[in-house]
Amino acid sequence: MITATYLIHDDKDLAKKAEGIALGLTIGSWTDLPQLEQEQLKKHKGVVESIEQLEEDERVNTYFGKRLKRALVRISYPSVNFSADFPAILTTTFGKLSLDGTIKLVDLTFSDELKRAFPGPRFGIDGIREKLGVFDRPLVMSIFKAVIGRDLRYVTEQLKLQALGGVDLVKDDEILFENDLTPFEKRIVAGKQALNDVYEQTGHRTLYAVNLTGKTFELKEKAKRAAELGADVLLFNVFTYGLDVLQALREDDDIRLPIMAHPSFSGAIASSHVYGVSYALLLGKLLRMAGADFSLFPSPYGSVALEKQQTLAIAEELTKEEPFVRTFPVPSAGIHPGLVPLLIRDFGIDCVINAGGGVHGHPAGAVGGGQAFRAAVEAVLSGRSLHDAAKENEPLRQALDLWGSAS
Amino acid sequence: MITATYLIHDDKDLAKKAEGIALGLTIGSWTDLPQLEQEQLKKHKGVVESIEQLEEDERVNTYFGKRLKRALVRISYPSVNFSADFPAILTTTFGKLSLDGTIKLVDLTFSDELKRAFPGPRFGIDGIREKLGVFDRPLVMSIFKAVIGRDLRYVTEQLKLQALGGVDLVKDDEILFENDLTPFEKRIVAGKQALNDVYEQTGHRTLYAVNLTGKTFELKEKAKRAAELGADVLLFNVFTYGLDVLQALREDDDIRLPIMAHPSFSGAIASSHVYGVSYALLLGKLLRMAGADFSLFPSPYGSVALEKQQTLAIAEELTKEEPFVRTFPVPSAGIHPGLVPLLIRDFGIDCVINAGGGVHGHPAGAVGGGQAFRAAVEAVLSGRSLHDAAKENEPLRQALDLWGSAS
Repeated sequence: MITATYLIHDDKDLAKKAEGIALGLTIGSWTDLPQLEQEQLKKHKGVVESIEQLEEDERVNTYFGKRLKRALVRISYPSVNFSADFPAILTTTFGKLSLDGTIKLVDLTFSDELKRAFPGPRFGIDGIREKLGVFDRPLVMSIFKAVIGRDLRYVTEQLKLQALGGVDLVKDDEILFENDLTPFEKRIVAGKQALNDVYEQTGHRTLYAVNLTGKTFELKEKAKRAAELGADVLLFNVFTYGLDVLQALREDDDIRLPIMAHPSFSGAIASSHVYGVSYALLLGKLLRMAGADFSLFPSPYGSVALEKQQTLAIAEELTKEEPFVRTFPVPSAGIHPGLVPLLIRDFGIDCVINAGGGVHGHPAGAVGGGQAFRAAVEAVLSGRSLHDAAKENEPLRQALDLWGSAS
Repeated sequence: MITATYLIHDDKDLAKKAEGIALGLTIGSWTDLPQLEQEQLKKHKGVVESIEQLEEDERVNTYFGKRLKRALVRISYPSVNFSADFPAILTTTFGKLSLDGTIKLVDLTFSDELKRAFPGPRFGIDGIREKLGVFDRPLVMSIFKAVIGRDLRYVTEQLKLQALGGVDLVKDDEILFENDLTPFEKRIVAGKQALNDVYEQTGHRTLYAVNLTGKTFELKEKAKRAAELGADVLLFNVFTYGLDVLQALREDDDIRLPIMAHPSFSGAIASSHVYGVSYALLLGKLLRMAGADFSLFPSPYGSVALEKQQTLAIAEELTKEEPFVRTFPVPSAGIHPGLVPLLIRDFGIDCVINAGGGVHGHPAGAVGGGQAFRAAVEAVLSGRSLHDAAKENEPLRQALDLWGSAS
């Protein structure tokens, strides 16, 4: 069984609307059915579990120019009605319903049996930590900067500098696609070489997340090729493909690579407060069930920001007790070393601290940027203030001078 | 090249924001680049084509509690930056940008070269008309009603009744998935038999659109099997999979079946006036480019309704002059025979008139429902009023008595 929670704004009778949804998305009608058919169809019938009336939202009322009742409506759909895949589940719970008035899909609660149809991450937080040998602190990640139009040497050099700063992960820009200058396979091979060089030089291991792109039905072969070439992690723009594609990549035993889900396009689905799907469900629960090892989402601190409550709800879905291993929350955008105390306060140590400009924009370049982040993390975990730690750490001092600090 | 048109609400400087987007989604920075690098990167640079300031929207201002400038911003992205597939295009034009403030993707304009990377429908309006031998009137379609939990005999009988009423197409309910009672392959075979029986009895040909569901990477094999079994049309919940999956089904020469795109889940992406993607782009232009032969969307007349302007814009995208054959617009939901004059006035004869309750709820059952629709179409095309035609047509008279008429 699956239970959907909807936020509904409507001026009509909500109990009637809810019953109409429960029937309309399952067996169609009920009260006018003969007794025999009722018995036969009972196990297929959708059920209104609860209607929790909320206070009206004056902003919404004003926007639509009428008084709208507002409620959280919970409706359950029997598993016998649908196959255990995301397209079927989304079509059942929010298919035509997504077009039917002012309604938002806030949550889906899966029965234990249904959960077993989904893989969850292959590696998850613990598996990624194993790969890196880092167990007691947030990971630090940086993003390639402005690599479109650049050649392999440029990109490899940038990768090396980031790794030299001590970051644990470097991810491709999600807008870097197959191209003549830095083709997928060459990026993997050259990137691996560069990171091995850094490892031999420093003993520090950095993983590179390469952007898996192209046509859907070519992705698996491409991912297998990536695995053969020794790729570390796949970056994937899941919402321009489909959750089920992510799941298929996760489940393929010939791929076996960690998958980093990028939130690209998810804003089109989750930004509105009254339509679409909640961020916690989309970037939290569903990504984890489908098998993402990392989920990136806008942090609450930067310019491209989500509300803090939304980001905490995403992270909660990614890490709470479930029959799936945990997915790394990656609060992103607008992150600089001065925000590390906030990040650890809000997301704990089981998160990835991810920065672009906050690494590359450092006065000492990407090396200094990575070092500043690592120093900030160390300071927070040892209970020191950033300013105190910065006295002994030049890169951190420079970062705080430039971007300030939240603590 | 692709040019994206965005509707932006923002309290900051819009020219600056637009330039930030054009650079941020391409080469990252420009003015601080050395001359040599500028020359090298010029062909990769996004360009702000225009900023069309619109009047502020007081409703939006009130909702957000601040004065927001409002503009249509057009930005072009060089094709060299991305591969010619929908995931890459959506990630480039509305990937992270979908998360960045109050912004809606209103349109995408593809260069002729880029258009050539997309197939458009395999059959389209003319190809479907050829299959049916119907050239001079809108097609009439009906939808299975309440078939979840029902067995093959029940479903086949319902199909037969609908066909006997003279409808041209019957489509599966989009929430009917793989199930023990009416499995996919059996539905195709039994449905084909039933429709052949009707054809032998009446000489009227009806096509059956069977719902293609399940895991993404199994769809092609399933669709090929459907083709082998003689399926007429595939119904497909494209927005719970991905536009690129639709395109792959269209392009596979071993499938060669018309595809009917269901708008399931599209409301999650297109309902908001300030976020997401416009209906005209999603259910119009992109579905046609990807290869849908039919596009269903809520009609402007029923209870689950789109604004009339939106539905006309969808139909325009599906049928306007383009290097793709035309896709059948299928305005749906709340359609009864009395609305046929409005449908033909608004959508012309190159549309599909699609009804569920308006067929099955007819006093004489689905047969009468189909007959009433066919009579209504005939009346309108011969310039008669429905009420006049109903004098000689009992099913139409009954329909008008029950549901009324718009003319």
